[in-house]
Amino acid sequence: MEQKQLEELLQQMTLDEKIGQLVQLAAEFYSEKAEEKTGPMTNLGLTHDDINNAGTTLGISGAQEAIRVQKEYMANNRLGIPTILMADIIHGFRTIFPIPLGLGSSWDPEVAEKVAEVSAKEAAVSGLHVTFSPMVDLVRDPRWGRVMESTGEDSFLNSRFAEAFVKGYQGEDLKNDFFRVAACVKHFAAYGAAIGGRDYNTVNMSERQLRDSYLPGYKAALDAGAKLVMTSFNTVDGIPATGNKWLFRDVLRNEFGFDGVVISDWGAIIELIPHGVAADKKEAAELAMKAGVDIEMMTTCYTENLKELIEENRVDEAILDEAVLRILTLKNELGLFENPHRGADIALEKEVVLSKEHRNAARDVAKKSIVLLKNDGILPLSKQENVAIVGPAAHSKDILGAWSWQGQKNEAISLVQGVNQLAAAYVTGSEPFDYFKPSQAAINEAITLAKGADKVILALGEEDWMSGEAASRSDIRLPRAQLDLFKAVKEANENVIVTLYNGRPLDLQGIDSAKAIVEAWFPGTEGGGALAEILYGDYNPSGRLSMSFPETVGQIPVYYNYDNTGRPYMPGDEKYVSKYLDVSNFAKYPFGFGLSYSKFVYSNLEFSTEELTKDGTITFSVTVENQSDVTGQETIQLYIRDLVGEVTRPIKELKDFKKVTIQLHDKR
Amino acid sequence: MEQKQLEELLQQMTLDEKIGQLVQLAAEFYSEKAEEKTGPMTNLGLTHDDINNAGTTLGISGAQEAIRVQKEYMANNRLGIPTILMADIIHGFRTIFPIPLGLGSSWDPEVAEKVAEVSAKEAAVSGLHVTFSPMVDLVRDPRWGRVMESTGEDSFLNSRFAEAFVKGYQGEDLKNDFFRVAACVKHFAAYGAAIGGRDYNTVNMSERQLRDSYLPGYKAALDAGAKLVMTSFNTVDGIPATGNKWLFRDVLRNEFGFDGVVISDWGAIIELIPHGVAADKKEAAELAMKAGVDIEMMTTCYTENLKELIEENRVDEAILDEAVLRILTLKNELGLFENPHRGADIALEKEVVLSKEHRNAARDVAKKSIVLLKNDGILPLSKQENVAIVGPAAHSKDILGAWSWQGQKNEAISLVQGVNQLAAAYVTGSEPFDYFKPSQAAINEAITLAKGADKVILALGEEDWMSGEAASRSDIRLPRAQLDLFKAVKEANENVIVTLYNGRPLDLQGIDSAKAIVEAWFPGTEGGGALAEILYGDYNPSGRLSMSFPETVGQIPVYYNYDNTGRPYMPGDEKYVSKYLDVSNFAKYPFGFGLSYSKFVYSNLEFSTEELTKDGTITFSVTVENQSDVTGQETIQLYIRDLVGEVTRPIKELKDFKKVTIQLHDKR
Repeated sequence: MEQKQLEELLQQMTLDEKIGQLVQLAAEFYSEKAEEKTGPMTNLGLTHDDINNAGTTLGISGAQEAIRVQKEYMANNRLGIPTILMADIIHGFRTIFPIPLGLGSSWDPEVAEKVAEVSAKEAAVSGLHVTFSPMVDLVRDPRWGRVMESTGEDSFLNSRFAEAFVKGYQGEDLKNDFFRVAACVKHFAAYGAAIGGRDYNTVNMSERQLRDSYLPGYKAALDAGAKLVMTSFNTVDGIPATGNKWLFRDVLRNEFGFDGVVISDWGAIIELIPHGVAADKKEAAELAMKAGVDIEMMTTCYTENLKELIEENRVDEAILDEAVLRILTLKNELGLFENPHRGADIALEKEVVLSKEHRNAARDVAKKSIVLLKNDGILPLSKQENVAIVGPAAHSKDILGAWSWQGQKNEAISLVQGVNQLAAAYVTGSEPFDYFKPSQAAINEAITLAKGADKVILALGEEDWMSGEAASRSDIRLPRAQLDLFKAVKEANENVIVTLYNGRPLDLQGIDSAKAIVEAWFPGTEGGGALAEILYGDYNPSGRLSMSFPETVGQIPVYYNYDNTGRPYMPGDEKYVSKYLDVSNFAKYPFGFGLSYSKFVYSNLEFSTEELTKDGTITFSVTVENQSDVTGQETIQLYIRDLVGEVTRPIKELKDFKKVTIQLHDKR
Repeated sequence: MEQKQLEELLQQMTLDEKIGQLVQLAAEFYSEKAEEKTGPMTNLGLTHDDINNAGTTLGISGAQEAIRVQKEYMANNRLGIPTILMADIIHGFRTIFPIPLGLGSSWDPEVAEKVAEVSAKEAAVSGLHVTFSPMVDLVRDPRWGRVMESTGEDSFLNSRFAEAFVKGYQGEDLKNDFFRVAACVKHFAAYGAAIGGRDYNTVNMSERQLRDSYLPGYKAALDAGAKLVMTSFNTVDGIPATGNKWLFRDVLRNEFGFDGVVISDWGAIIELIPHGVAADKKEAAELAMKAGVDIEMMTTCYTENLKELIEENRVDEAILDEAVLRILTLKNELGLFENPHRGADIALEKEVVLSKEHRNAARDVAKKSIVLLKNDGILPLSKQENVAIVGPAAHSKDILGAWSWQGQKNEAISLVQGVNQLAAAYVTGSEPFDYFKPSQAAINEAITLAKGADKVILALGEEDWMSGEAASRSDIRLPRAQLDLFKAVKEANENVIVTLYNGRPLDLQGIDSAKAIVEAWFPGTEGGGALAEILYGDYNPSGRLSMSFPETVGQIPVYYNYDNTGRPYMPGDEKYVSKYLDVSNFAKYPFGFGLSYSKFVYSNLEFSTEELTKDGTITFSVTVENQSDVTGQETIQLYIRDLVGEVTRPIKELKDFKKVTIQLHDKR
């Protein structure tokens, strides 16, 4: 459809029809089986007309269902306008990839592009048109449950991932490439800075920090063409984002030039009331509308009040028209007027979803996401070795992590299954092993197995509900029982390798005397297989942390790009410097850290010029030599520091990185 | 001296002499015995002329020494200008009062006024002219060591204390009342918000929060007439305060109308270099001068560079003249031109310092500062009871706390001494008791005594070096050995009363099953006596916390005036609300909390109008009845909440309070 036709269509719409376009309702309004809930439900009191008029849907999928809903919707819609089917596809649709914090640890944006491409394809053939991804909130507080959903603590790295996600989801030709979906960047803005790491909490920062550290990730996604932006739950400078005119009109629209669709997060418009900036739903609708929020997710402030607000001249109908036109434009950009079912294809769905090719991709990505944190020479294992695999996560298929809506745990490969696929010698237990309260039988079995083995793989971690939305933890250690288990196993056999499934940087006190620690995050469907390949050296670990691991929760926030302060601390310094009495300032494992089975040595750092002018460039080159017997990948990281400026600059700022494969005994 | 004469004096000064007025040097430049060091020392490379010309001194005291230094200084000074003797008198001079966090807990600004008055008198007769107090930094992070130096987490309460301190220090007629000293409010601005509670760390907040929460305390001190302002070490919006022109010129001088002296904190000008905003000392001098910092403490950026900066027209001499005139004006306001020795009086010093009257004041204030946190009916004790007093703090005289420069621990009253003064029956041990590694003999003795007693007072706490400047802790529990001791003592006798000496809100997990917990802070010279009076009911506890105690360090920051958020948590709520999985959102003991031996019941809340207009007032009244057999003091606290505003407002804001004594079975 041409733009002109869209405008004509808008002209034909009644006020009610226009308002309807701004409403998003979830699957349960269209089907008996409610498939996705991510917020508090309220009795919405909608009429059939409201439901039929609602411009977009949340959480409907499956080609058959999608086709049915679209058909019924269009049949009920006076002007035959199609709906858009949206959902949260965060790290895979049915084939689940590692959580985004793991993807960030690949330091390889092509990985994110691949994940997005595969996710888009599975989602698209299942009938979806839009995914609420990428989430590019900068994160510095591991207490926050949603750090699992971010690629980490650095705006430069996040930006590269943001671009890659958008490219992977949307492809080159969204309208005609039915294996793609539109991307919605979220959460605008600064949701990751919730005070105390407590989800939904207030955010407070200077505009300078907002612009320096928090906005670049979103901006990168927009520059890559993301079609939608989601509002965040938090306040920005005292005003909830969802009613923040400065943030959306001045910054997002005018300054960043974004002309796509802005959608509220689940219930975020009605939440302007508890936030204390709106007296009632009507005022909430007015604020959100004036801020430029086009779609209201799951509440009825717009439905119930926009008409009256326009009639009372509190909201200009032109603002409504703009919003509607943006939504119609998105529908048109998705080609829905011509192809209302887009990629939805019952036959192809069976073929594409969780295909062997996609599983292979998931395996490949999972390997690249795993970070070797510690290795006292115990890894890699030999396949002939007498290894015991014990602990609550040994057989666990709870390895998909939060935000894996369509993922099925029973389709996942456990660690033991992964090791078994490698035809390695191993023993493992059969007692069910709880993460929090393991039975004495399970513990005894683990100890017995450990005693009889040369080496022990102790598989520990968080369960999936312990991270993700509304899953903040004040204590970021492993559950107490697992720390006790580590102690007992280590007494039985000192050659302990700890593997970790988890959704956040952990405080590793209590297990840090392991001979090796492998951070596998929630690695997705093929996770156990990927982890096994790392452990046995079939894959040489290449992941690097994209978020720092603090020594203790009492150091939070710990992040690599801190300020020097006026009294910088170096170990051995005197009293009056910036430090704690009882712990170092530094991360246990910092941003950018990760081990390899190769040994890389740097030399010959050269740069093209001594001085960087305002618009100038500097080219750096360095020789990296692999002084080992194994081919490996090295992530070369370029940091700068501005020593003197008008404002204080961080002690290090990532400005470029390159992941290269270097053959054994070779250099690059 | 008239203002005109000061201006004439300024005209007579050479450039070097003017620059000299801006320099502050410490005692070691004037005497063999270095009395106060609060920052990193550097080899300053000063000439005799520089030292003789330096306009003010730090840390010289004692009437005899002060008189000698002033005499020598004036004899060496071509124009006979006197110097000013400044020092950190924070919570008492020789007679030490409770730390300011304890003073805040009195919820009684008259207490602060009394402390300041006594401190000023002792300091003044010892020859001092200026104290670097009050410190009114708002604090929300108990990891920060300097929370002990603040009156707490609320800007309204802090403001009332700020005014009272200034009034107490300066009196009504500073020039002629030689028992007073000039007050220097610090640290401008927002030093209390150091990230991670790590001293000297970066501060980041919106201007809105800065103005709402952090600036009011300083402003209140200025409105009360404080003569000086000290810069803070931290950055404010990316620019170190000490070089922050916006903060000092625009806000402090132009907006707040402050025309007194601004002094850097120790070395804060040279620290503009490590902060990364100045390339060298010269640039640091330029930035600080342009920002309006009049006095440079302990470094030589001004001395070495101001002349050249003026000659090169990088700094306007008029700015220098302004600074010098402000310093001369302060000298004149102190009457030093007429009375260069002011209050310094060798005879009076002996009489006044640590007088009986001052000790009595310290006892009275300490009693008002102690907060009864928990009481399962075990307190007050009867003097006939068989009580054991055990634990590392039982005999301790390390109860003065940080920032008690002239205070002598051996002059302090320990808890056991305090109990002894009350003629109460008690037993106590004689084994030395370490706070961190008590001997087995000491532990055994404590257990034996506990077993033989009806009730046990277990005296625990921090040592003084664990709080104060450069004393941040990532772990805010008591030392491990004390938690173990509590467990052992409680097994021996379940009637355990824990008393605490400490400088910050603690995580009380591990001792919270005590039958009573008494928070005595570092209570000062008369502390043990005051604590004994509380325990035995000679004084009915009336303290209320001015800073929240978190349940755990993982909840930080916890403060009473948080925002509601869009998804407020109430116990029992569903998943998608703002909370942690593993701990409540709430403080263990919140701001405003404190128990009494009386029972107060509120009724008849009335207010004068239902609606508050912009410049209107509301009068509230309430009846408080003492339904107990003991007379007590109740702190009536008035909080408001703005339910709907243009910006989100806190869930509670303190707007008034009144401490009243209510007789037994009476009401008010």
